[in-house]
Amino acid sequence: MSSIISVRTRGHSVTEITPQVENEVAKSGMDKGLVHLFIQHTSASLTIQENADPDVTHDLISWLDQTVPESGPYRHTAEGPDDMPAHIKSMITNTSLIIPFANGQLLTGTWQGIFVLEHRRADHQRRIVVTLMNEA
Amino acid sequence: MSSIISVRTRGHSVTEITPQVENEVAKSGMDKGLVHLFIQHTSASLTIQENADPDVTHDLISWLDQTVPESGPYRHTAEGPDDMPAHIKSMITNTSLIIPFANGQLLTGTWQGIFVLEHRRADHQRRIVVTLMNEA
Amino acid sequence: MSSIISVRTRGHSVTEITPQVENEVAKSGMDKGLVHLFIQHTSASLTIQENADPDVTHDLISWLDQTVPESGPYRHTAEGPDDMPAHIKSMITNTSLIIPFANGQLLTGTWQGIFVLEHRRADHQRRIVVTLMNEA
Repeated sequence: MSSIISVRTRGHSVTEITPQVENEVAKSGMDKGLVHLFIQHTSASLTIQENADPDVTHDLISWLDQTVPESGPYRHTAEGPDDMPAHIKSMITNTSLIIPFANGQLLTGTWQGIFVLEHRRADHQRRIVVTLMNEA
Repeated sequence: MSSIISVRTRGHSVTEITPQVENEVAKSGMDKGLVHLFIQHTSASLTIQENADPDVTHDLISWLDQTVPESGPYRHTAEGPDDMPAHIKSMITNTSLIIPFANGQLLTGTWQGIFVLEHRRADHQRRIVVTLMNEA
Repeated sequence: MSSIISVRTRGHSVTEITPQVENEVAKSGMDKGLVHLFIQHTSASLTIQENADPDVTHDLISWLDQTVPESGPYRHTAEGPDDMPAHIKSMITNTSLIIPFANGQLLTGTWQGIFVLEHRRADHQRRIVVTLMNEA
């Protein structure tokens, strides 16, 4: 079973999508397996991180900004100074994630949430392909 | 088929878990497929790396320390100076891994081992969900 | 179904393998599912990135060189100054990728291509295990 989650991101920020992923698992009626997420973009990405303290995602973004500066220098600059850093930030985080579930519930740890990282300055509509796999 | 591997890590170090993963595949009796590992934490992570020379994992950790310094500055500091760097190091390595197997053997390359990276200074008990999938 | 793609890489460069992956999906005759790629090496890796402008992959490589310098210092130097940086670059990119497909076509976004990143200076023959999984 596969479907698309469409996420409205805020520029240069994170959006938690744990509830949407839980909902995809619940509506499948499947008991045990893996859920795969694939973001169809190269300037936004996915990560699993602590969702208890919002300072954590703030600090993740600050570190990415510091480590992948807009100053470059880069050759690929036609789409703006935030574009090439967005590709690099996507490369070192994740284009796809896989999470196990059982009894229709994600087997994430107590503090783990699923996030879309929007690396561009502008808000975007981002598409994530969700695929469910039965356990063997 | 899914199960939990519980790993006692040493602080700020790596622990190879290749034998435990091989054992999960062997005891399943499955011939061909994929084994998925998912660590239920955001301050420890997974990687596949050379397991022949222990200097390799030493240098991996040194580079992570240098690139993700404890000095930050970070907002999320309540759990100690090693906590926020641990989240960032987890983000740029892996929360999950998938490895193919055939004839009940992992299809890893000659030098590839599976490691838990403990990013906190203290030893921890870390939980990894193992899920096996049959090949199509 | 699983098979091996063998890729001749150019040293310190990227090689796009999207057509080879599309071909594996097409020849399987499968309609919907996931394709898993696993590179059997720890000094070359995989990424999904923009394939429209070749400056993007040029800038990805430049950033990796700057962020993971050959000067180290490293302990693991026996295989040359480009070896330990190659392991680190592999760790922060991907040893494996999973991509969904439907109607026999990859569900990648408009600009997404699949690349092998060769982190060593010399050309290499690299092996990638391809496994296809049916959707639930």
